[in-house]
Amino acid sequence: MRENSLKAFGLTVRFYRNELRISQEELAERCGFHRTYIGQVERGERNPSLINIITLCKSLEVTLPDFFVRYQQNSDS
Amino acid sequence: MRENSLKAFGLTVRFYRNELRISQEELAERCGFHRTYIGQVERGERNPSLINIITLCKSLEVTLPDFFVRYQQNSDS
Repeated sequence: MRENSLKAFGLTVRFYRNELRISQEELAERCGFHRTYIGQVERGERNPSLINIITLCKSLEVTLPDFFVRYQQNSDS
Repeated sequence: MRENSLKAFGLTVRFYRNELRISQEELAERCGFHRTYIGQVERGERNPSLINIITLCKSLEVTLPDFFVRYQQNSDS
């Protein structure tokens, strides 16, 4: 469950980042995260906390419900 | 932002636990968590990880999108 969930979460972050046409570096800057953190999240190497998830969604300009609807599609596929 | 978010998350967990009419101990058992963890989460004292959030939602029998719709109501109020 764990690996699939982290991978699906990373794919979802990447989807919304690409929708904004911004780089991982720019997203990291928006969030106040280290620039390598975004790459690790997108590759499913991180298990982000609630607060980091909220920060990511704000910076990605997507609501938490909408984010998790797409997350669910990514984890079901 | 942090305190309000953790409190809203805790209220949302409590809401869905009460909907199931189960105790914190039973929810902890369903999740495989220590029984005190659920109390801490509900009081907004914990910043749960993605994997723990997924585990909680499964045990609470609610989808992630639905959970975060209610979470948003709790954090806006």
